Amino acid sequence: MSEFAYIDWLRRRTACSPRVALGPGDDTAVLNWPAGVSCLVTTDMLLEGSCFLLDEAGPRLVGRKALAVNLSDIAAMAGRPVAAVVSVGLPRRGGRALAEQLYGGLRELADQFKTDIIGGDTNSWNGPLVINVALLGEPTGRGPVTRAGAQPGDWLFVTGALGGSIRGKHLTFTPRVEEAQRLQAWTRLKAMIDISDGLAADLQHLCKESGCGALVEEAAVPISPAAEQMNDGRSALDHALGDGEDFELLFAVSASDGEALLREQPLRDLGVTLYRLGECVPAGLWRVQPNGERKPLEPMGYVHELDGDP
Amino acid sequence: MSEFAYIDWLRRRTACSPRVALGPGDDTAVLNWPAGVSCLVTTDMLLEGSCFLLDEAGPRLVGRKALAVNLSDIAAMAGRPVAAVVSVGLPRRGGRALAEQLYGGLRELADQFKTDIIGGDTNSWNGPLVINVALLGEPTGRGPVTRAGAQPGDWLFVTGALGGSIRGKHLTFTPRVEEAQRLQAWTRLKAMIDISDGLAADLQHLCKESGCGALVEEAAVPISPAAEQMNDGRSALDHALGDGEDFELLFAVSASDGEALLREQPLRDLGVTLYRLGECVPAGLWRVQPNGERKPLEPMGYVHELDGDP
Repeated sequence: MSEFAYIDWLRRRTACSPRVALGPGDDTAVLNWPAGVSCLVTTDMLLEGSCFLLDEAGPRLVGRKALAVNLSDIAAMAGRPVAAVVSVGLPRRGGRALAEQLYGGLRELADQFKTDIIGGDTNSWNGPLVINVALLGEPTGRGPVTRAGAQPGDWLFVTGALGGSIRGKHLTFTPRVEEAQRLQAWTRLKAMIDISDGLAADLQHLCKESGCGALVEEAAVPISPAAEQMNDGRSALDHALGDGEDFELLFAVSASDGEALLREQPLRDLGVTLYRLGECVPAGLWRVQPNGERKPLEPMGYVHELDGDP
Repeated sequence: MSEFAYIDWLRRRTACSPRVALGPGDDTAVLNWPAGVSCLVTTDMLLEGSCFLLDEAGPRLVGRKALAVNLSDIAAMAGRPVAAVVSVGLPRRGGRALAEQLYGGLRELADQFKTDIIGGDTNSWNGPLVINVALLGEPTGRGPVTRAGAQPGDWLFVTGALGGSIRGKHLTFTPRVEEAQRLQAWTRLKAMIDISDGLAADLQHLCKESGCGALVEEAAVPISPAAEQMNDGRSALDHALGDGEDFELLFAVSASDGEALLREQPLRDLGVTLYRLGECVPAGLWRVQPNGERKPLEPMGYVHELDGDP
């Protein structure tokens, strides 16, 4: 039983009030605050040994990542981050120094993205390091871009090369906050998600919410140098399709808007190239080989497995 | 080095934008959202073995507590809860059943307090259970009641008997959300805090923010039956003064408002008696013995100690 099955179970049990414009199941929730104001809300928990190795990453980059993954969720809605609260569970031994370095890394990124740290909860315990960030944001331009809204014929784009983020990018990536706002102002984003679980898995999430399928042209997938260097028996393409935590944006636009994006590359001055991966189709998830043959595209990213046994 | 010293360190480093009406250091943060709307934001993390014993409490009451402690923070600002996001770190073995029961307990309380669960993050790992809730709320009546605002001569009240919450109340308490709103409508609350760290410790927090001192009349402290039953060598009074997690409200009002509260007991129909504990003084924290003798009141609640050594 995976985390996704559990989330589906939750969604079936979650009747929300009219204040909730968008509940569980997208990158962020959207809340209707009084006076016609919308509020984006997201949260992510990082657990030592599962989401990071403390000795390898060091506390500064762990603190940075805890905020960055949330910023990426706000970016996926084309939102603007506003304020965060931070909870930590610190190992008792060395907890103070750890806390200060965690906060240092987090704070640096918060300043860069004009995000206020407005509160939190500090605990110590006899367990490994845990850090949770909840982040509030506000919509921009035409409003929040959800995972739903892609249609057959739409083109699919990604904001950067994929795969092998475990070699470093999962700790040092730049959340695509500015890029998303620029795209939102430049074109009509029909659906968007950030790639946290892996291209194939996140494309599946987007298609599920949009009620369509998609095909990815293998030759069009931008493969990162880190994916080429993995040397673990799996191909670089498989890493690009399957690896999680690249935190690039995957989005759908109409074919004509897609042509304009490819021609103009409106994020070039930010150092970001837009790659056309493929397009939406009525049903199924497919990979198209260079010889034109179509095969099912299996989600293969990391999934939190939940044991069903008591 | 305690969590409080760390929080002070954080506060000195936390320059917030004009959007932040109230940053770290109170029960909740207060954010100025556009269009003159304020948003209360709070978060709490519960860690197995430190904040609860899973075998003893069972997952339903742990899920309940994770939300309840946040509701209590919103109550301490006289706010109304609106929506929560929930992150969990689940042990791999039995994680699914655990998650469902956690959610069941949390959901029941959320329904009771008309709080939407709008999102979250589900993880599994090889560690103990961790659950974090971040809760948004909105101010009521005259606006958020902070810890600052009490003055010498003000009377101090508490909404219920104290001590020995470890015997059960820390899991089953009713967050004083309705009580706080009723009080806010009925009188002028000058400062308020919920008793999570213990009466003496939380009174110290309130006095520190208000820039005054306080005295507690020992004979006036309402002692819970659970405190009487502790039988651990410490007096029931010491338990009432020191024990954490009663989640009653501690608040200050003017002496004349205090007389009216005592006379009218406006929460009586909710089953809640208001007790006058003592009053604010210019400086110091004092306990007054029945013979009139004054002694320093030492904070003695639970504190998360952070080891400073690397």
